[in-house]
Amino acid sequence: MRIIAAARDLIAEAGPGVPMARVARRAGVGVATLYRRFPTRDDLVAETYADQHAECAASWRQVVRDSDPARALRDTILRLCATQVVDRGYTAAILGGRGLEDERMEYDRALTVLLDQAKAAGSLRPGIGVGDLRLLLAGNAGVIAAAWPAAATASRRFVEHMLRSFEAPRETSRQGTPTQC
Amino acid sequence: MRIIAAARDLIAEAGPGVPMARVARRAGVGVATLYRRFPTRDDLVAETYADQHAECAASWRQVVRDSDPARALRDTILRLCATQVVDRGYTAAILGGRGLEDERMEYDRALTVLLDQAKAAGSLRPGIGVGDLRLLLAGNAGVIAAAWPAAATASRRFVEHMLRSFEAPRETSRQGTPTQC
Repeated sequence: MRIIAAARDLIAEAGPGVPMARVARRAGVGVATLYRRFPTRDDLVAETYADQHAECAASWRQVVRDSDPARALRDTILRLCATQVVDRGYTAAILGGRGLEDERMEYDRALTVLLDQAKAAGSLRPGIGVGDLRLLLAGNAGVIAAAWPAAATASRRFVEHMLRSFEAPRETSRQGTPTQC
Repeated sequence: MRIIAAARDLIAEAGPGVPMARVARRAGVGVATLYRRFPTRDDLVAETYADQHAECAASWRQVVRDSDPARALRDTILRLCATQVVDRGYTAAILGGRGLEDERMEYDRALTVLLDQAKAAGSLRPGIGVGDLRLLLAGNAGVIAAAWPAAATASRRFVEHMLRSFEAPRETSRQGTPTQC
C-alpha cells in the first residue's frame, strides 16, 4: 500500500515524528485521504510497523528458548542495534512512540526474560535491567546520528562497549556466584 | 550582547543547527544586522562559545597535571557529559560543528594526554582512544534526547556504563601490566 510504503521510507529517514503532510506528499495522496485512513500519526506508525513487529515477536519467542542465555541476549541486542542503523523509525517507535504500547510491553517482557536468564547463568552484572537496555538503544541512536555515514562501524564499537559493561565481573562469572559489586 | 545571549539560549535548546532567522527574532534584531555581524552560522557559534571554551581550556591545562590520571579522566568525562545535559549546543559544536576546529583540536590533544596518562597508569583498557570518548559523548546526546525530563539521571547511569567498559580488566590493573584482551 502506497501510504505505508511512503511512511516506512520517511520514518526510517526522519524518525517517527515525521509530519503527516510529508507522508501524504510522498505517497501522492491528499492530506484528507491520509487522515481518513489513519486518524492519528500513532495509527499510521503502528500500521507501518505491524509486519516488522510480527516478525520480531516470532524471533523473540525463539530467542527466549535459546540454551545459551548470554548469547541469546547478546545476539538480540546486536540485532536490535543493527536495525537502528538502517531504520531509525522502528526502534525509536518501540522506545518512545505512542501507538505501539502493546508492542513495547511485549519487548520489555521478552527482554526481561532474557536478562533474568542471563543473570541466572551468572553472565550478567547484577542490577542490569530493561532500563539499561533502553539506555543502550538511546545511546546507539545518538551515535548513529553523529557518526553518519560511518554509523554501522561506530554503532558496533559503541554496542560492544555497553555489552562489556553489562558483563558480570570476571571473578563472579568464573565462580558462577553473582555478587553485588 | 543581545545576539550572543539569544544564540546561546537557542543553541542550548535546539543544537548548533538552529536557523539564523530564529536567532535574529529572539535577539530582536533584523536578519541583515545579524549577518553583518556574523557572516556565517559558524562565526556565530564560535563567538557564542568563546568564553566557555576559554574556561574549559584553562581547566584542561589544570587537569592534565593531576597526579591521579584515572581520576582526572573520569572527572573530565563526567563534567563534559553533565554539560551536555544542560547545554546541547556546546558539546555538539565541539563534536561536529564547523567554526570550532581549533577548539576541537585542543580538546582532542588534552583528551589524548589524559588517555595516555591513564593507560600508562594501567587503569585504562588498551585500545581505548579519543574516538571512544566521542562515541561516549554522541551516545550521551542520544540518551539525553530520549530521557528528557529525566535526562540527568539517565545520562549519569549511561556514562557510568561507558566508563566501566573503558576500565582495564581487573587482573590487569592489579598487576599493573596492561595486556590485550
